[in-house]
Amino acid sequence: MIACNQAIIDRMQSSVPLIPQLGAHLVAAGGKRLRPLLTLASARLCGYGEKEGQKRHIRLAACVEFIHTATLLHDDVVDESTLRRGMASANALFGNKASVLVGDFLFARSFQLMTADGSLEVMAILSAASATIAEGEVLQMSTQNDLSTPIERYLEVIHGKTAALFAAACRVGAVVAQHDREAELALEQYGTNLGMAFQLVDDALDYAADQQVLGKTVGDDFREGKITLPVLAAYEQGTEEERRFWKRVIEENEQTEDDLPHALEIIAQRDAIRITIERARDYAEKAVAALACFPESGLKNLLRGTVLYTVERAR
Amino acid sequence: MIACNQAIIDRMQSSVPLIPQLGAHLVAAGGKRLRPLLTLASARLCGYGEKEGQKRHIRLAACVEFIHTATLLHDDVVDESTLRRGMASANALFGNKASVLVGDFLFARSFQLMTADGSLEVMAILSAASATIAEGEVLQMSTQNDLSTPIERYLEVIHGKTAALFAAACRVGAVVAQHDREAELALEQYGTNLGMAFQLVDDALDYAADQQVLGKTVGDDFREGKITLPVLAAYEQGTEEERRFWKRVIEENEQTEDDLPHALEIIAQRDAIRITIERARDYAEKAVAALACFPESGLKNLLRGTVLYTVERAR
Repeated sequence: MIACNQAIIDRMQSSVPLIPQLGAHLVAAGGKRLRPLLTLASARLCGYGEKEGQKRHIRLAACVEFIHTATLLHDDVVDESTLRRGMASANALFGNKASVLVGDFLFARSFQLMTADGSLEVMAILSAASATIAEGEVLQMSTQNDLSTPIERYLEVIHGKTAALFAAACRVGAVVAQHDREAELALEQYGTNLGMAFQLVDDALDYAADQQVLGKTVGDDFREGKITLPVLAAYEQGTEEERRFWKRVIEENEQTEDDLPHALEIIAQRDAIRITIERARDYAEKAVAALACFPESGLKNLLRGTVLYTVERAR
Repeated sequence: MIACNQAIIDRMQSSVPLIPQLGAHLVAAGGKRLRPLLTLASARLCGYGEKEGQKRHIRLAACVEFIHTATLLHDDVVDESTLRRGMASANALFGNKASVLVGDFLFARSFQLMTADGSLEVMAILSAASATIAEGEVLQMSTQNDLSTPIERYLEVIHGKTAALFAAACRVGAVVAQHDREAELALEQYGTNLGMAFQLVDDALDYAADQQVLGKTVGDDFREGKITLPVLAAYEQGTEEERRFWKRVIEENEQTEDDLPHALEIIAQRDAIRITIERARDYAEKAVAALACFPESGLKNLLRGTVLYTVERAR
């Protein structure tokens, strides 16, 4: 991870000063670096990265983080967020223009890194994941404010915007290791299910978490009229009066100051957080089960621990 | 070009309806398709594309247009433009969010197309060009409203935001044809110089053109306080009073309705359009000169004609 962080910093350099400046802000904000960790751990689980000179996984982990960071920068523009990982978001500090353009730069840089690596298979996986992320985000946009969104559509959205890159991050690790096809697909399954669990928990936390702990603004999704499982579940189980409330605040986007506390209350009453977390647990179980083909090892424990951490941060 | 247009339409498909919808709007708006034309013509000039089954240049031309379209979509968000190619811009019609995300999708899709083509050399050229474009745009942002920007910095900006992709589009054509290194570098030189001329003329037209003919809003650059050669030249040659005017409208961005007509007047008086066009002509000459190593042919005439068209549209 240290080598990967260094690669991230090195490859964010540019002759245009604003790019490393904004880059430094993002690096300082840190974040969990979950996706590059998945690439590194997957490669190691498949036996790559211990021998002298085996460094491809480090570069590709940086590459995965660049794609992720680019989408975060663009997300914050799209969502007009002012906080990210508990710090002022890049768009709030540097402006939307810079966020769009530096996102583009990081995306381009990630493809330069892949090209330098030279594996067409890796490029196919990561460019397909990048397209899927954008599709997921567009789909999310078209469900916004729409309480009639089926849960399946919501799951499709989070698959696109989150699980696809988790899956690609893991799969790339196996490809680098040139491990067998079974391992590659198992790690992809692991990543997909972990990503689904991760996003479900994230969506639950938006209606439950303590901002200081989480480093994100509670109620962001609410204010944007984003359709997530907590809202869909509360709406489905809601009384007539509650449904009118949801229609006003989400569909018509007419919100007053008291609406968020009221929404949190209804969501608690309708058990919508528990419903969301349970769904996350189902995916988490599948993620762990996908690792069955690998023998027990410290790395397998790490990947299993990542699943646990993902679900348990909801407490 | 017909095959390339078809490839563009085909590859813009997605299961998320908004993407082909917005795509159709962009395709309908048409544009000059100058960059894919450069890829096709360069490949043909190097002897590729006439034999049965030689279709790589078509896919890569589509790929170049996707990169260009993605940057246009993001530019319009960054510039808050409402017109593009004489039609309502995508961000005005579909919103900024859609423009950012569909831009990302097209960018990702272009890398999928490159991966399917399979040439690491092509990927290196186009991913480097993509990073350079983003750098150019960020650099442009940091010169905004700054009348002390040296002309060299301005030239660096237009090299990044425009000439780099022109150069890459041409070079990719030569690479596909597996022509010799000399041809590859000659076409890159041609593209770079053509791109510089193209952007200089574009910047001149923003202070001179008839909107109906040009399909862009005259005075866009002025309103955004963008630093372009017409402004730098007029400022440099200006009286004390004129300099105060430029400082107010560009640096302090305090503009009233009468300011654009006044700016156009000063720019005409200070010969700033002619200065800009002359600079464009210098680059145009270099572009034509770069073709010297190729024997005369219809395709060489086409590439020469493209240079002429680029400079002469300023009349």
